[in-house]
Amino acid sequence: MKTVFSPRHRGHADQLELVAGAIVPGYELTSRAEYVFARIKAVGLGTILGPEPHDLMTAARIHRQDYLDFLPTIWDRWIAEGRDGTALPFTWPTRGLRGDVPPEFIDGLLGYYSFDAGCGIVEGSWDAIKSSHDVALTAAGLVKDGERAAFALCRPPGHHAGAGFMGGYCYINNAAVAAQWFRDNGAKRVSILDVDYHHGNGTQEIFYSRADVQVINLHADPMQEYPYFLGHANERGAGEGEGYNLNYPMRFGTDWARWSQSLEDACGKLVTYNPDVVVVSLGVDTFEKDPISKFKLKTEDFPKIGERIAQLNLPTLFVMEGGYAVAEIGVNAVSVLTGFEGA
Amino acid sequence: MKTVFSPRHRGHADQLELVAGAIVPGYELTSRAEYVFARIKAVGLGTILGPEPHDLMTAARIHRQDYLDFLPTIWDRWIAEGRDGTALPFTWPTRGLRGDVPPEFIDGLLGYYSFDAGCGIVEGSWDAIKSSHDVALTAAGLVKDGERAAFALCRPPGHHAGAGFMGGYCYINNAAVAAQWFRDNGAKRVSILDVDYHHGNGTQEIFYSRADVQVINLHADPMQEYPYFLGHANERGAGEGEGYNLNYPMRFGTDWARWSQSLEDACGKLVTYNPDVVVVSLGVDTFEKDPISKFKLKTEDFPKIGERIAQLNLPTLFVMEGGYAVAEIGVNAVSVLTGFEGA
Repeated sequence: MKTVFSPRHRGHADQLELVAGAIVPGYELTSRAEYVFARIKAVGLGTILGPEPHDLMTAARIHRQDYLDFLPTIWDRWIAEGRDGTALPFTWPTRGLRGDVPPEFIDGLLGYYSFDAGCGIVEGSWDAIKSSHDVALTAAGLVKDGERAAFALCRPPGHHAGAGFMGGYCYINNAAVAAQWFRDNGAKRVSILDVDYHHGNGTQEIFYSRADVQVINLHADPMQEYPYFLGHANERGAGEGEGYNLNYPMRFGTDWARWSQSLEDACGKLVTYNPDVVVVSLGVDTFEKDPISKFKLKTEDFPKIGERIAQLNLPTLFVMEGGYAVAEIGVNAVSVLTGFEGA
Repeated sequence: MKTVFSPRHRGHADQLELVAGAIVPGYELTSRAEYVFARIKAVGLGTILGPEPHDLMTAARIHRQDYLDFLPTIWDRWIAEGRDGTALPFTWPTRGLRGDVPPEFIDGLLGYYSFDAGCGIVEGSWDAIKSSHDVALTAAGLVKDGERAAFALCRPPGHHAGAGFMGGYCYINNAAVAAQWFRDNGAKRVSILDVDYHHGNGTQEIFYSRADVQVINLHADPMQEYPYFLGHANERGAGEGEGYNLNYPMRFGTDWARWSQSLEDACGKLVTYNPDVVVVSLGVDTFEKDPISKFKLKTEDFPKIGERIAQLNLPTLFVMEGGYAVAEIGVNAVSVLTGFEGA
């Protein structure tokens, strides 16, 4: 399997986030991608390519143009106010407030275009975000051109980013852009299978009213876990999208026996949908030792995820999402891919 | 003029907040109320009373019961998770997310019931919040019993708190509770005149569809200033409340000449409404030296605010809201009250 990777992710470094009442170094570290990269080389997964540059035309089909216009300007606006460190919002247009009027000032804009204080921006962030987007589209191109599968080693991740907001370490929704690109390049139906520990709220929001992209999420129950405000089982899509959004929330402590039942059911629904291509939002924070997660998957379970996905027998794009146990993230993520290849 | 004050506000101390990408000591310091208290004694404004305890029945008529039930539990839930410091949310149900399902976990609940990271909770916060509520209702009782005016020296303040959310240093909306109490105790119509530098988004939200409480806000334009997502001139109320919400957003740098024009217009609208009582949300962060604000009112302007309000010739309850230039907050706040008394 070919991998697409960009060293430009390294510019998105040392960003801070708000957790448990304190500003701390973000868990979404540069080392995450480097561990996966090193593991790919160590096991000889296949060629590693750099990304081809892509414009944001496809991204603009799933994201709001004003949001895409805002993202590259954040850091300059922040330092223009005499700030340094990490650009973070501190107030948000939640219920009882208006979400229809973007304010002028940077603090207001950051809140307007986000839903949490886990989407910090530093000087190199936009370049990394854009390169992550390019990684996803380059890998999508490999699949369209006939590869059975490809791996987009994206960083920053994307699945929490919605049409007009960042959050949860995510800015551009790489998997969603790739799905849209497949649709615009011949695929009639695309399935997104999100196996990250956290619900992919951005992906769900983007495609919620569409029948041409099936979105399936396996994740920690939002009653217990971030992002808390989306990912319930009764969210099944709206309008034309009714029935094409599927959520499998699971409680803290979920192990392979339970998790794999959800995967099995999800795969059945996916086969019924009969997509032309599958985009896997690959998070490995379901791992029992992940520092911010509470599922119980073991290292030996991750190849089985890949094996099951391979049995779908569909062109498959893997897009890197979360996973924070840095020492093991490389082994677990690449195990999914080798499991897929060996199946 | 009699003042109601509770030393129990001091328990809400050393709380932290997120500003400009950093966790910092909250600007809403205990010393704010103490400076005002000292100035009241220094000028001999009148008797200073402690609050009578009140139940939360009136508060429950403007706040959601689940929100009122949650507030007293925050600190215990926070420390039960092994946390210390200040309980702060970090993710919020903004657009694209659900605001209808309160999650189970404390981090989710904090976000569910707030709109920013400026509403920290420490061990003594609830007791202070409750005492601030009692201060407002005790002072309201003085006005009902025949005082021309009374001053509720509330801390924490209240005008950013909505029916179901805290934010902006506010938890229970003291002015809104007092207005509701007047309505429930003989007043047919109540006007709330909010002269704080920041828009009283919570007060607006609470009464937006009601004709029996007129809400008038003079404040910094939300395009430029916190709370950013409410306070535009075209927000005029809804349904039965149509026409009973009035906003006077003003740009950075507004001085007395400009600000007093808004006050004059507001007073005209208030007289036309013909309320039985006026509740003044008294913030003095319009002051030119306020550390977090950008209006240009001078110390000699504050008595004129009181004089103009006195000319309305209506029973008047002053409720303390914001104002952060601690050295001058006492002089400026009390100047409004002495200006009122001398008119």
